[in-house]
Amino acid sequence: MSNLSSVLDQVDAELDSSLERLFALLRMESISTDPIYADACAATAEWLASDLQSIGFEARVAPTKGHPMVVAHHEGPAGAPHVLFYGHYDVQPVDPLELWDRPPFDPQIMDMPDGSKRLIGRGTSDDKGQLMTFVEACRAWKAETASLPIKVSILFEGEEESGSPSLLPFLEANKEELQADFALVCDTNMWDLKTPAIATALRGLVGEEITIHAADRDLHSGYYGSAAANPIHILSKILAGLHDDAGRVTLDGFYDAVSETPDEILKQWDGLGFSAEDFLGEIGLSSPAGENDRSVLEQVWSRPTCEVNGIYGGYSGEGSKTVIPSEASAKISFRLVGDQEPETIRKSFRKFVSDRLPADCTVSFKDHGGSPAVHLDYEMPELQKAANALEEEWNTKTALIAMGGSIPIVGDFKSIFGMNSLLIGFALGDDRIHSPNEKYELSSYHKGTRSWARILDALAVS
Amino acid sequence: MSNLSSVLDQVDAELDSSLERLFALLRMESISTDPIYADACAATAEWLASDLQSIGFEARVAPTKGHPMVVAHHEGPAGAPHVLFYGHYDVQPVDPLELWDRPPFDPQIMDMPDGSKRLIGRGTSDDKGQLMTFVEACRAWKAETASLPIKVSILFEGEEESGSPSLLPFLEANKEELQADFALVCDTNMWDLKTPAIATALRGLVGEEITIHAADRDLHSGYYGSAAANPIHILSKILAGLHDDAGRVTLDGFYDAVSETPDEILKQWDGLGFSAEDFLGEIGLSSPAGENDRSVLEQVWSRPTCEVNGIYGGYSGEGSKTVIPSEASAKISFRLVGDQEPETIRKSFRKFVSDRLPADCTVSFKDHGGSPAVHLDYEMPELQKAANALEEEWNTKTALIAMGGSIPIVGDFKSIFGMNSLLIGFALGDDRIHSPNEKYELSSYHKGTRSWARILDALAVS
Repeated sequence: MSNLSSVLDQVDAELDSSLERLFALLRMESISTDPIYADACAATAEWLASDLQSIGFEARVAPTKGHPMVVAHHEGPAGAPHVLFYGHYDVQPVDPLELWDRPPFDPQIMDMPDGSKRLIGRGTSDDKGQLMTFVEACRAWKAETASLPIKVSILFEGEEESGSPSLLPFLEANKEELQADFALVCDTNMWDLKTPAIATALRGLVGEEITIHAADRDLHSGYYGSAAANPIHILSKILAGLHDDAGRVTLDGFYDAVSETPDEILKQWDGLGFSAEDFLGEIGLSSPAGENDRSVLEQVWSRPTCEVNGIYGGYSGEGSKTVIPSEASAKISFRLVGDQEPETIRKSFRKFVSDRLPADCTVSFKDHGGSPAVHLDYEMPELQKAANALEEEWNTKTALIAMGGSIPIVGDFKSIFGMNSLLIGFALGDDRIHSPNEKYELSSYHKGTRSWARILDALAVS
Repeated sequence: MSNLSSVLDQVDAELDSSLERLFALLRMESISTDPIYADACAATAEWLASDLQSIGFEARVAPTKGHPMVVAHHEGPAGAPHVLFYGHYDVQPVDPLELWDRPPFDPQIMDMPDGSKRLIGRGTSDDKGQLMTFVEACRAWKAETASLPIKVSILFEGEEESGSPSLLPFLEANKEELQADFALVCDTNMWDLKTPAIATALRGLVGEEITIHAADRDLHSGYYGSAAANPIHILSKILAGLHDDAGRVTLDGFYDAVSETPDEILKQWDGLGFSAEDFLGEIGLSSPAGENDRSVLEQVWSRPTCEVNGIYGGYSGEGSKTVIPSEASAKISFRLVGDQEPETIRKSFRKFVSDRLPADCTVSFKDHGGSPAVHLDYEMPELQKAANALEEEWNTKTALIAMGGSIPIVGDFKSIFGMNSLLIGFALGDDRIHSPNEKYELSSYHKGTRSWARILDALAVS
């Protein structure tokens, strides 16, 4: 414990220089979904590898067909466990830019009226701020003890926000190098500002994009209106049919592999003091929009969903244009639970769309990736060690929760390496990840770093 | 007739220099719907006023709250009729730019395999090429006779493609100056490549834009999916409900003021040899999409319609983004016939949308203008004179047709000045106006100019 205590002091003493490193990382425009930021992604990977080398990691930038990976290793004491830490350095696009209060890649610390501080900028919470809590914990251990309490490998991905196309091939091609005893993944939330959480269930994801094609060119609506098929009308009709009046998804067989959440888990969730009113109220809403026979917590944690994430077709500029466009598109994603197979859901969706195409229209599909849902093992001894370490830092019981989001790598770690994953993160539900004015509480960053310092220590104890 | 014959020779002899002037006009990027092109619109108006002055018109650029008007006058022989010619110098936006074979504002003449020639570029057909046929006919008359056969006033508008917001106030404020015996409007089509046409009926137009608002920010679909209202889902459902399975518009009272086309007119249309198969086949379609108990010609000429011209919301960039947007929008237009009142239709539409909003959602509306349908007087003597002049130029009977498009100024000329309008144009249905690769047949331009030279002559005869 003497070591841990001085390591925690070191984290506190070095907070300012730690933030300087984080801000250097946040300034890099590593948007993975748009090819024009490819150089920025590569530069970000180089920066991370070089920073890890500065702590004593053996680190390299590993090319892929898309954005590169960062892989790093550090030895631990003989007989100590070996963990693989995962984070991602890519970030979401920043549009609509006009809704940001300041430039998204010019991070700053904001003083809040209650005396707390926030880090503001794209990636502060998702996921650069989170991954740096682990890096900085390692740096503090090295500074104080010239070593780490356990053996640590690190994998930083640059395509998490764009469906991770290179991840699976990379894991398979580097199976031996990346094998560890278990994984640590830092891309999730705390229960609330003061309560740490470990996520034990994650929904899967299927991403699709459809484009409805009609006439072979854009048409003048005065000359062709009503006689010529309008692909926006057809797309609207198809999307409107994806949910029934009870909020259920209408795809054939969609709920076949969905199992009910056990009563004991639902009871535990009840005990968390979740308020649907607060959850929706915080984003300006009041009525749950999903399946009308499910609680809000079920809707976002344990039920499968279908959401249209984007739609575009025809004229969207200023004013009006009397055009019938030749095509219209939508981006759609499904969240999966239980044993829903991504490819089965994709197939059912494509059939649903194709079955509803009128004469003269065609559809093209784009596959934006997929991953099944994951349920972690409650009996995993490392889970209890990490939960206790978190409890010591935050002085309150660690919440074991489910997550609505999808972290496909957790499934890959299990299927390729047989590794379980501990999902520990310090983000908050109001961090506006994927939105303008993304933020990360300074307390998440500071106490998150301290939490990892404690977890590294706790995991060393056999 | 001796004068006319030498004027026609003059048109032929000056074709090359006439095209040079047209191309100078076409190079000006006078897109009226987008405020960033305001300077280009102003420059285009200046160019036109100056060109008209060079022929001997008294011409001026008249400012409005939006883009300026061009107003010009030229005296005629004592006792000759006085016409007001209308055209518009603004053009449609050029997106999607990547579908153009060459830059839209770099016009060129293309040699076709059949030996014909085409003018290619934005505005060649709608409406710069058309309005210049009249200007060049006046120029030829002046060159040959130092005068015009009738008194001519000219009004060129710069906001026709964006709903003409300044037109009505301008007409009312300049009523005395613009009053003439009747109007000539050149913004319509020929029946086909070899058959001239005068349009005697035009549909009206109502333009609306709606934005559905839900949460107060963009949301992560993993955290909020299904629980939070998705404005794209709501918008899709509303748009999908605008037509029933028979292709009829479902707005309350939509068909109340729609009268049936008289049998004799339907019979005349039958005689035009219109082929629905060819009409749709030319744009890559084969099945009429509108009211299933109406012919295609009725659908596009004499029936009211509702078309979504654009839709946008959420993420539309490369790849995917798991977002639930805070809002989603659509641009919608209605074509009106008979006595349908634009404001009645607008009100019915807004009620339709508001009635379908779920809890937590709001809607905002933008008014993109409106105009009633217009039916011209078949008994107008000038109609027969112009029809005969066209027949002489094209060696075939002039078709008297209806038009699916809307030209609001025709209604304004009637209501403010009591003037009837002759709608004569040389565009073709396949000119791709409002679309990439807009074109105008060289024969439309050349013989169009000759046609106006003949019409000016014919109208002078009492």
